[in-house]
Amino acid sequence: MKKRVVVIGGVACGPKAASRIKRLMPQAEVTIIEKDELLSYAGCGLPYYISGEVRDCSELMSTPAGVVRDTHFFRAVKDITVKNRTVAERIDREKKEVHALSIETGERLVFPYDDLVLAVGSHTVKPPIPGSGLKGVNFLSTVEDARRIRDQEGSLAGKHAVIIGAGLIGVEVTEAFVKQGMQVRIVEQTEHLLENLVDPEIAFHLKNEMLKNGVALNLKDRAKEILGDDQGRVRAVVTEKDTYPADMVLIAVGVRPEVRLAQDAGLAIGSLGGILVDSHMRTSDPSIYAGGDCVENLSRITEKPLYAPMGSTANKHGRVIADNICGRPTAFPGVLGTAIVRVFDISLGRTGLTEREAKAEGFSVVTALTPAPDRAHFLPSAKLIIIKLVVENPSGRILGCQVVGYGDVAKRIEVAVVSMSHKGTVYDLGSYDLAYAPPFSPAMDNIIVAANIAENKISGIGRGLSPEEVRARMDAGEDFIFLDVRSPAEFEQMRIEDDRVRLVPLGKLRERLKEIPKDKEIVAFCKISLRGYEAQRILDGADFKDVRYMDGGVVAWPYKKFVAS
Amino acid sequence: MKKRVVVIGGVACGPKAASRIKRLMPQAEVTIIEKDELLSYAGCGLPYYISGEVRDCSELMSTPAGVVRDTHFFRAVKDITVKNRTVAERIDREKKEVHALSIETGERLVFPYDDLVLAVGSHTVKPPIPGSGLKGVNFLSTVEDARRIRDQEGSLAGKHAVIIGAGLIGVEVTEAFVKQGMQVRIVEQTEHLLENLVDPEIAFHLKNEMLKNGVALNLKDRAKEILGDDQGRVRAVVTEKDTYPADMVLIAVGVRPEVRLAQDAGLAIGSLGGILVDSHMRTSDPSIYAGGDCVENLSRITEKPLYAPMGSTANKHGRVIADNICGRPTAFPGVLGTAIVRVFDISLGRTGLTEREAKAEGFSVVTALTPAPDRAHFLPSAKLIIIKLVVENPSGRILGCQVVGYGDVAKRIEVAVVSMSHKGTVYDLGSYDLAYAPPFSPAMDNIIVAANIAENKISGIGRGLSPEEVRARMDAGEDFIFLDVRSPAEFEQMRIEDDRVRLVPLGKLRERLKEIPKDKEIVAFCKISLRGYEAQRILDGADFKDVRYMDGGVVAWPYKKFVAS
Repeated sequence: MKKRVVVIGGVACGPKAASRIKRLMPQAEVTIIEKDELLSYAGCGLPYYISGEVRDCSELMSTPAGVVRDTHFFRAVKDITVKNRTVAERIDREKKEVHALSIETGERLVFPYDDLVLAVGSHTVKPPIPGSGLKGVNFLSTVEDARRIRDQEGSLAGKHAVIIGAGLIGVEVTEAFVKQGMQVRIVEQTEHLLENLVDPEIAFHLKNEMLKNGVALNLKDRAKEILGDDQGRVRAVVTEKDTYPADMVLIAVGVRPEVRLAQDAGLAIGSLGGILVDSHMRTSDPSIYAGGDCVENLSRITEKPLYAPMGSTANKHGRVIADNICGRPTAFPGVLGTAIVRVFDISLGRTGLTEREAKAEGFSVVTALTPAPDRAHFLPSAKLIIIKLVVENPSGRILGCQVVGYGDVAKRIEVAVVSMSHKGTVYDLGSYDLAYAPPFSPAMDNIIVAANIAENKISGIGRGLSPEEVRARMDAGEDFIFLDVRSPAEFEQMRIEDDRVRLVPLGKLRERLKEIPKDKEIVAFCKISLRGYEAQRILDGADFKDVRYMDGGVVAWPYKKFVAS
Repeated sequence: MKKRVVVIGGVACGPKAASRIKRLMPQAEVTIIEKDELLSYAGCGLPYYISGEVRDCSELMSTPAGVVRDTHFFRAVKDITVKNRTVAERIDREKKEVHALSIETGERLVFPYDDLVLAVGSHTVKPPIPGSGLKGVNFLSTVEDARRIRDQEGSLAGKHAVIIGAGLIGVEVTEAFVKQGMQVRIVEQTEHLLENLVDPEIAFHLKNEMLKNGVALNLKDRAKEILGDDQGRVRAVVTEKDTYPADMVLIAVGVRPEVRLAQDAGLAIGSLGGILVDSHMRTSDPSIYAGGDCVENLSRITEKPLYAPMGSTANKHGRVIADNICGRPTAFPGVLGTAIVRVFDISLGRTGLTEREAKAEGFSVVTALTPAPDRAHFLPSAKLIIIKLVVENPSGRILGCQVVGYGDVAKRIEVAVVSMSHKGTVYDLGSYDLAYAPPFSPAMDNIIVAANIAENKISGIGRGLSPEEVRARMDAGEDFIFLDVRSPAEFEQMRIEDDRVRLVPLGKLRERLKEIPKDKEIVAFCKISLRGYEAQRILDGADFKDVRYMDGGVVAWPYKKFVAS
């Protein structure tokens, strides 16, 4: 007998599962039920449609060969039946049926299944801000949303936009709006951009890039109300700080897994509110699988639940589901919570745990912070990137990695991702035979340097202080020598203004040791703190007892400019 | 008592070992003996000095902070004694002394040691071509060589250069010469560029890029003689094919480990001719360590010796040597033979074993060949890259990876490198939580697609033929249906000209099954062969018995143009 598979959801996980099921079992009868008109579109591409980088919406729905993935495509190419504009309303687990409603005809439909796949995605969080219903107040989750935003009457140029929420979508759309010539303001409750994704000293560089591009930032602020005109069109946003003009508002404060159908059917829901699945993507009902943004994953670091909706993960889920439905017991090992974003000229990536998260999980942590050119420094094309590595002490296991900068960020994130997937340590990382040639990396790749630094800290050879820790000591009025070991020329160019700072270039340090008091704590630093570390070792060797260096040097010192937003 | 460490060699491994020894043991007495004037320069940067990308030679010898690493630098900053222009002539292992000769003063010097580090590098191979001694015939291994090449009398523009040897140095300098406006011809004995590094279908794309940039290629040709004028200046190169004008010749046919000193001292030499070291970089004499280009490594794949000189590896060796000298038993796990090169607009990377090498090692192999855009295909900035994955059958272990193309090649190579360092399989690779956003990758990253393809082949779902295999069948006059499942428009644009080709677009295949004879072998393909694979599965499902698809589709088909060089 032919196996009947019903898939609810036609965006990423659903079509992937359906297509592979047909490849593995050509005789299977596969039906996709999708509430909207459009299928298989690249939801993550919406900001690039808004920015104008993607000219035509249909490109987001096409295969790389330019074929639009519509219902006809699925029928002709895949032999898959698609019921779009059809809402799945109820699952009858006993009879193994999905009850649905056709939006077009009003007809009630029943789809019997042997196996059911829930790929119903997520929904955007709609915070109870008065005025959210005004014209010009948008959320961004579908192609229709993106069209409504971009295809305004008249040009977007010069108009005022307020974006509420500084997560991934918020910062991506910020860039898109600026590219369209809009005046953009971000209103974010927390202190930092991408607060849930990166540590403050990494978020800082994104903030600078935003300010450089004329974006106004209201951090630690909250939208209280959205005001409209007498046509019901948005006019302004009232925050705790002030009232700001707004011709358009985007609310992007996050997404939540869509679980109504699963919940009504009595399927188990996880602690983070997503559909609970085992490593085979099977729900609490063995005939029902779920994948994509509606499920919660396991973290490969903490082995605890993690809600990390991502198109890449949804596709992997779809493949695992297809395998299991077709008798191949493939398992999905979980995720690391990897994310990457480009905003203007800067890229920012992260994977695993931030320092804050790792500490909250109870890990003993050392970190390395390495600002350096992304390729051989003698090439004019070299650009700065800053890596922060979060490492378990003393095992050396890599717990997380964040990279920000103008150069090749993605490559270093992938190195960390793959290493962490194999429970790699900094000892492993330090010896990877990474691809070296001057146009691609320094001879010692940035992430290998980061691994070496973390290793030195674990073994006690290097003793670092983070910029935050140094700043806290300064704010507390502590007495220490803040030893700048750069050259006088570098000092002239850019320096940390503080009475504790003393300049002794590294090349003079050995002969000027007597000038440095032995009874005070010393914090050495340079441009990026390789020389700071070298200074620490020189002073250690000369019997100074209380010496540290500051991670990342002046390049990573986040307090030098743009302190006020 | 202070430990005395003598380091012979001042370029990469030597200074790295010396510096770290001083950081770990500030009281150690460390001396570097270097035969040349210059230390610690970036040898890999020489082609970029020749091209003009690097303006000034001193940049190759500077720290990222712009300090030149000369003898004064090592004394003042590192407390290391440097004896440059000093040739180590003999090691007295019994007395633990190095006997050396100062080139400047003619003085004979003796350096007693507790530990000795050999970081003596490699020398370029000088093939016995008559005329190699003419003025204008160059090798490239030192800064002086690069200066001699670039700082010719008069401009390089318009002059004829012949490069003998198409390895990494040969192709890098080709680009450099073209950037200087020279007419460049490569003479290479083997059939392909980078013959020892990549498989032919990957080398092919580099060849096209060379031809596109006006480089003349004499493959399967050999330089027989170099002719000079009556001033002793090079004038022409005589090959087996013809005689070619030459104002300059670069001979770059490889390097060999420098082992004379070690050999004379009776240290063990490995099967590939490099100094033999254990995993702690210790030679057969426990007081003598060796690292960098003078040693042979172990392959992390075959666990056999591998000679893969690389600046990145030399630095890692230096660190491991320092640790061991200072009582930390760090081990070096070997290398993968990773290499990467940029030539004009194309990048090419490789790691592990090629298909040819893997088969020669006796592995049962499946491969995946995936040409696809390097980021979301709907972004205009997306660029083609082609990944070839070499995988052990049936374990799925990744044995090697090659990537070529105009997009982000390096990132995918690093993913393979890290995975292979942990003995990763395609099952591991397919589930890595790689960093996805449209400007960085497709939702299913290219290398994840490659892993999935290899997995499908191992399980027998996908049955691929390489372009070479298809071509061989065509050349043998075999009868099969070469089924192009692209659209008529794609077919018009670019197609494989052959009588066996039949066009049935994938979307029509199911309804036109009757047109396809069941008694013939079928080889399906498309642009990149995702649809080719889909077609194979459709035909499998319709009871066709002998169906395959061609890896990589028309994009990776190497015979469509530039067939003759």
